[in-house]
Amino acid sequence: MHPSSHLLDTIDSPEDLKKLSRSALPDLAKEIRKTIVDVVSISGGHLASSLGAVELGIALHYVFNTPRDKILWDVGHQAYAHKLLTGRREQFATLRRHGGLSGFTKRSESSYDAFTTGHSSTSISAGLGIACAKHLKKDTSKVVAVIGDGSLTAGLAYEGLNQTGDTHKDKDLIVILNDNEMSISQNVGALSSLLSRTFSASRLQSLRKEFGEFLKSLPRIGENVYQLAKRSEESFKTFVTPGMLFEAFNFEYFGPIDGHNLNHLIDILNNIKTIKEPVLLHVITKKGKGYPQAEKNPVYFHGVGSFDIDTGVCRPKKTNAPSYTEVFGQTMVELARTNDKIIAVTAAMPEGTGLVPFSKSFPDRFFDVGIAEQHGVTFAAGMATEGYCPVVAIYSTFLQRAFDQIIHDVCIENLPVVFALDRGGIVGEDGPTHHGLFDISFLRTIPNMVVMAPKDENELRRMLATAVAHSGPIALRYPRGQAVGVDLDEPIETIPIGSAEVLDRGDDILILAIGSMVSEAQCAAEQLAGSHAVQATVVNARFVKPLDRDLILPLARSIGRVITVEENAVQGGFGSAILELLNDNGICNVKVKRLGIDDVFVEHGPQRALRSKYRMDAAAIVENAREMMED
Amino acid sequence: MHPSSHLLDTIDSPEDLKKLSRSALPDLAKEIRKTIVDVVSISGGHLASSLGAVELGIALHYVFNTPRDKILWDVGHQAYAHKLLTGRREQFATLRRHGGLSGFTKRSESSYDAFTTGHSSTSISAGLGIACAKHLKKDTSKVVAVIGDGSLTAGLAYEGLNQTGDTHKDKDLIVILNDNEMSISQNVGALSSLLSRTFSASRLQSLRKEFGEFLKSLPRIGENVYQLAKRSEESFKTFVTPGMLFEAFNFEYFGPIDGHNLNHLIDILNNIKTIKEPVLLHVITKKGKGYPQAEKNPVYFHGVGSFDIDTGVCRPKKTNAPSYTEVFGQTMVELARTNDKIIAVTAAMPEGTGLVPFSKSFPDRFFDVGIAEQHGVTFAAGMATEGYCPVVAIYSTFLQRAFDQIIHDVCIENLPVVFALDRGGIVGEDGPTHHGLFDISFLRTIPNMVVMAPKDENELRRMLATAVAHSGPIALRYPRGQAVGVDLDEPIETIPIGSAEVLDRGDDILILAIGSMVSEAQCAAEQLAGSHAVQATVVNARFVKPLDRDLILPLARSIGRVITVEENAVQGGFGSAILELLNDNGICNVKVKRLGIDDVFVEHGPQRALRSKYRMDAAAIVENAREMMED
Repeated sequence: MHPSSHLLDTIDSPEDLKKLSRSALPDLAKEIRKTIVDVVSISGGHLASSLGAVELGIALHYVFNTPRDKILWDVGHQAYAHKLLTGRREQFATLRRHGGLSGFTKRSESSYDAFTTGHSSTSISAGLGIACAKHLKKDTSKVVAVIGDGSLTAGLAYEGLNQTGDTHKDKDLIVILNDNEMSISQNVGALSSLLSRTFSASRLQSLRKEFGEFLKSLPRIGENVYQLAKRSEESFKTFVTPGMLFEAFNFEYFGPIDGHNLNHLIDILNNIKTIKEPVLLHVITKKGKGYPQAEKNPVYFHGVGSFDIDTGVCRPKKTNAPSYTEVFGQTMVELARTNDKIIAVTAAMPEGTGLVPFSKSFPDRFFDVGIAEQHGVTFAAGMATEGYCPVVAIYSTFLQRAFDQIIHDVCIENLPVVFALDRGGIVGEDGPTHHGLFDISFLRTIPNMVVMAPKDENELRRMLATAVAHSGPIALRYPRGQAVGVDLDEPIETIPIGSAEVLDRGDDILILAIGSMVSEAQCAAEQLAGSHAVQATVVNARFVKPLDRDLILPLARSIGRVITVEENAVQGGFGSAILELLNDNGICNVKVKRLGIDDVFVEHGPQRALRSKYRMDAAAIVENAREMMED
Repeated sequence: MHPSSHLLDTIDSPEDLKKLSRSALPDLAKEIRKTIVDVVSISGGHLASSLGAVELGIALHYVFNTPRDKILWDVGHQAYAHKLLTGRREQFATLRRHGGLSGFTKRSESSYDAFTTGHSSTSISAGLGIACAKHLKKDTSKVVAVIGDGSLTAGLAYEGLNQTGDTHKDKDLIVILNDNEMSISQNVGALSSLLSRTFSASRLQSLRKEFGEFLKSLPRIGENVYQLAKRSEESFKTFVTPGMLFEAFNFEYFGPIDGHNLNHLIDILNNIKTIKEPVLLHVITKKGKGYPQAEKNPVYFHGVGSFDIDTGVCRPKKTNAPSYTEVFGQTMVELARTNDKIIAVTAAMPEGTGLVPFSKSFPDRFFDVGIAEQHGVTFAAGMATEGYCPVVAIYSTFLQRAFDQIIHDVCIENLPVVFALDRGGIVGEDGPTHHGLFDISFLRTIPNMVVMAPKDENELRRMLATAVAHSGPIALRYPRGQAVGVDLDEPIETIPIGSAEVLDRGDDILILAIGSMVSEAQCAAEQLAGSHAVQATVVNARFVKPLDRDLILPLARSIGRVITVEENAVQGGFGSAILELLNDNGICNVKVKRLGIDDVFVEHGPQRALRSKYRMDAAAIVENAREMMED
């Protein structure tokens, strides 16, 4: 586990990799693993997936002619070895740091990153697009999409497979199924059990016997072909293996092979490279491979913070406050004890959304639908029609995948589905693909939808209780990470729909804040009063929709200066809703300054630093308040 | 084809249907078909699909105990027979009329409509949700999802299958695959060719021989199990049939059976009803069955206007103006002649989006991805990375399915993908599931996105030329139906990004209109000048994003009264963007009235009637302008 890096140090590009003899590659793999563990133990990151794909990364760059040949790493979180081999060795220690390397693949970061990723299951679709483009250009270079078995449960991946296997046009695409029998958590669904179905020797023996008998019996003249087909299907059905599934989709199937055996990988990739039709190579890997702690606990080491290498123990955070996620999960259990209609739905994220305690306490009422946000929402709509109260817990950024289902299957019929959006706002190191900066804008445009954001973990509990008592669609969004650290009320009281609260009173300026920005607003009000003699009224809006017009309008009218602040895009966001409210009520003579993300994608970096950079904090509120006072 | 309706006239609910003898049912089917053809020939509607599902509708209600047992008709456009059998016989002539029956299933319309539909591929997910809810309640009634082979190409359907086949929990769901070898147009993709693969007698004979030889050879002691498995897969792969595919997903498979043979259908449904695990019944039907013109041309009769029953000829519309769809399609061909980077992508809608001429002129550059909007967008992003200019033509309402892919795969990397959104705004008779009333709101919140809407078909051409010349993501949305009827400029000139135009000048009021509302605004300005002595400036905004601030701000400042008008939700829409613009530039003393859809779902009905009802027309603009002048 502690080799020097003399091989890796010679590799500035895949050209250098190709100079190594095959026999040197296993040592290179060790060096890469050590580098990955060293860096991730400090910076945090997607350790287990990347350790599982080290040999795959080496073999692909050894065999293919990158960057002319394109490799698409699905999700991109398993691509650390790829990064180390493609000229980013020296920057690798900056992984996931502000200004440093992205934790995913990113076209603007390297010409070797064929596609920008973060969300799952895009690689086949994008890879097919690239392959079709190359075909049009008569460019014979190759396209390889590397996709995990978990990612394959998403509809997008299936849609991509379906078009790739279409026989109407040539589709020169290699799909590598990186099968570690997990998505992020344990895999679910029928595909998962199918993928693990391979023949054993004794199974083959018994099949031989069964088949022999079956074959003797067919075909009988005059028997209906349907009947025959039906009987043959019944006899064959247990034979269906992953290979047959993909062959049925017109892929040439190879595997499964050991994804940690470099010689086998290189041989088969050299072989496959020459095929000019859709190919699927099934590779079995182990998440966390080579780092015993991660092999033992791949779920924990899927996305991990800094940890001690020898023990694998996470370095304790300097806080006693729970995370919003934990409070959500505990509150779900608490509410579900007295309300047997509450259902929890997660899309492959029981740990990430905090639903593990719920899944243990109420296994019958817990549904992990796989990486399938669209289905999760429509599934929940179905449960709601039967009188249940499904709580769909999906990160803000991933709920974007279910936008149509929210409109079409939930909101048109005004069904009581609760959307619990974790990771609303800046998420930090996962960067632009993962920030949840659009939910306020896209949810509030939908009729029948109620949209809330709590100022702290106690309010999160109250909003969740409010949500499960509500008779229509309702969403609450809360930030990633540590909560404020307030006491939790017992019993949990609901909040009247559409009611805001005044936290501080002052006549100079009105700060309308939502969610995570409420504490910043209070902090700003203190500073304004203390250092600048500016007295602010701070309103915790609580609801983006419906807004508390009876509370907000008189305050805006009397104070005349308004700052809105939200951890969301300002285009169509909370501040925009306030503008609409004021305008619709004929309030023109009020100055409004809207703070939030102004029409840019936000890079990766620490949450606090990004909030500060993008002017969503107390300092920005103070500054804007002072400017307004001077006008 | 012209029976009386003496059987149908006795059926007020499925209870009455059950009183009929089996031998009477074929005559009932004939009566239902006649009624459907009669009504649709006047009102328009989804004729071909509904004619194909007449026996299925009869058999399901004959066998199952509806509404306690739930039937989910995917998309809902094949459910006319179902409507006739479930108490809506007398209202059936109001189909798709304002205030009348919906063209789809709708929970608020009937307790027999288990789920509200319109978009495809939701039935398995919703059905599974209902089945799981019933399981929790220990309710043993049944759930049946009826889904077409086209709908099965969507990822959502696959996600539903995958969870249904999960072995961790009991899933009591019957899926009926209504296989007519079409979606709306010809089906595409690997699944389509797989579904048509069944055994013939001679095929079985040759397989027998092949198999016999293979079986003799295994197992050899000491041979690697992987090798054996690989060889067996190679031998078995051509055996994979639809049945095996679904069996592999842990469904009990039955079929394929003739979906027009009522006796067979009823027998097998009675049989299947007793099974308490996932079942898939594969039924072969013919689109348009029983009406020769529709059988011959099912694509035309998928969704049809009024027509002459005897000839099948569509009643001519009283207009010489082309549709926006036609102009889009022709312009695509024209632009593609001189720009070989232009690619067209459609999601199972070559006819609906007007791309048939393109597909004939440039077959290599035309991609129909199936009912797979998510994949279509990511596929286009892949092509864009290779220097192509993909034009993704998807109806506004269906593009909601690809919201995440637009953000994540296109806009984060600022890739030049063109989104052509047909059916932006009120679509008319298809109703709330199909109106395209959110695109302006959800697109403009995304960084890097340019959003346009043309005032007429000539501007549509110019915007399309502008879009294909643009270096980043760009969307144009245009209405369903007939265009304005203006002359078309040759050559086509592009429009500078973000430039609006002033159409009329007046000092009293500023009307900022976008897209279809521009002509209404001009009409309003005429009326205001003529009858009310109010002089209006009319601006055709052309761009929702970026707005033409240099043109709009001085006008707003000097005129002081602004009406915005858009065929879109006002929450976060174009008018909201104007409020943001005015506010961000410190313009407070301007009155703004925003016209558009105010936070409701709009029912079905004629476009013009709905525009009038929801105050998006010249009359509403005039009325609001007068009110503003009086204030």
